[in-house]
Amino acid sequence: MEQLIEKIKNEGSVLSSSVLKVDTFLNHQIDPQLMLAIGKEFAKRFDGCGITRILTIESSGIAPAVMAGMHLNVPVVFARKRKSLTLVNDLLTASVYSFTKQETSEISVSNKYLSENDKVLIIDDFLANGQAAIGLAEIVCQAKASVSGIGIVIEKGFQEGGSILRERGYRVESLAIINSLENGIIQFDQSPVGKAEITR
Amino acid sequence: MEQLIEKIKNEGSVLSSSVLKVDTFLNHQIDPQLMLAIGKEFAKRFDGCGITRILTIESSGIAPAVMAGMHLNVPVVFARKRKSLTLVNDLLTASVYSFTKQETSEISVSNKYLSENDKVLIIDDFLANGQAAIGLAEIVCQAKASVSGIGIVIEKGFQEGGSILRERGYRVESLAIINSLENGIIQFDQSPVGKAEITR
Repeated sequence: MEQLIEKIKNEGSVLSSSVLKVDTFLNHQIDPQLMLAIGKEFAKRFDGCGITRILTIESSGIAPAVMAGMHLNVPVVFARKRKSLTLVNDLLTASVYSFTKQETSEISVSNKYLSENDKVLIIDDFLANGQAAIGLAEIVCQAKASVSGIGIVIEKGFQEGGSILRERGYRVESLAIINSLENGIIQFDQSPVGKAEITR
Repeated sequence: MEQLIEKIKNEGSVLSSSVLKVDTFLNHQIDPQLMLAIGKEFAKRFDGCGITRILTIESSGIAPAVMAGMHLNVPVVFARKRKSLTLVNDLLTASVYSFTKQETSEISVSNKYLSENDKVLIIDDFLANGQAAIGLAEIVCQAKASVSGIGIVIEKGFQEGGSILRERGYRVESLAIINSLENGIIQFDQSPVGKAEITR
């Protein structure tokens, strides 16, 4: 997605060979017009898939997910990383290991908001090791619903998350794929739109 | 805001005389079309105020804030409740006491995203004791920016947050004001739109 790639080129900051900071428009400050375009692009890519619900995870997944939900006209559910006081019963949970934080956390979704008839689009801001997406897919599975696809804003193609998810048969659509952050340079995957999903 | 009040009437669940659960459309599952309407309403109420930035707090504030930001065409910043790994330097922070959780947490915003020329609209999902909004206003103050107003989706008018903020001179616009949750019944403030801000 050209608009997103330009934004990353102009505003992304390489903190190390594995960490890209995009706090100016996605993870701390949010650019609502870009989120609108991102939501529209997800809706276009998953149009006709019969999506009934979007599942994301707090906090940075919420903005792109809500914009996609607006375009697809379906509700959005966000998994919580911490327990809520008013959300205590009938939880679907999964353990998610964070390589960067080196800790395991439990994510949870009320079973009220996922049912076996749901065709779920999972959306997240980043795909690196894939642990969050796998956890969200596990929750969909627990609800006996089906995963129609996984929409990612920025995939770090040099980490294994994308391969793991695609090998498991999930359709993963990443709006920007970064192949390397070595030497402080952001190198994008040059495959044409859609090709990444076929060849990777 | 009639559409919001109808939604609360139809889907809100009274857990106690002080706790209203709106997990079906705001705090866990999100209704994107309603968020769009809420964002539009905030934009209408604060139109002409010269807002340059919206400040909210993760996680439930993000959806209404991003929709308001889209309509006002300004960036949205969300304060973090937990420290981020890629967000470590030059933080503006405030302590926020949660009466429900009975704990104090530190919220933080990078000083990169608030400057002294900013006219800030603070947006949050709920207003109860006002601690979160006060913390956000403190952060705006630390940045030497100004608070142009506070937009709240649901105000619990029987708790003191609204009075505290209005007595401090802030313009508070709440899209739904609830006067009581006693006996499991949701009683709304019947003041005409805008009157609440004058008389309270």
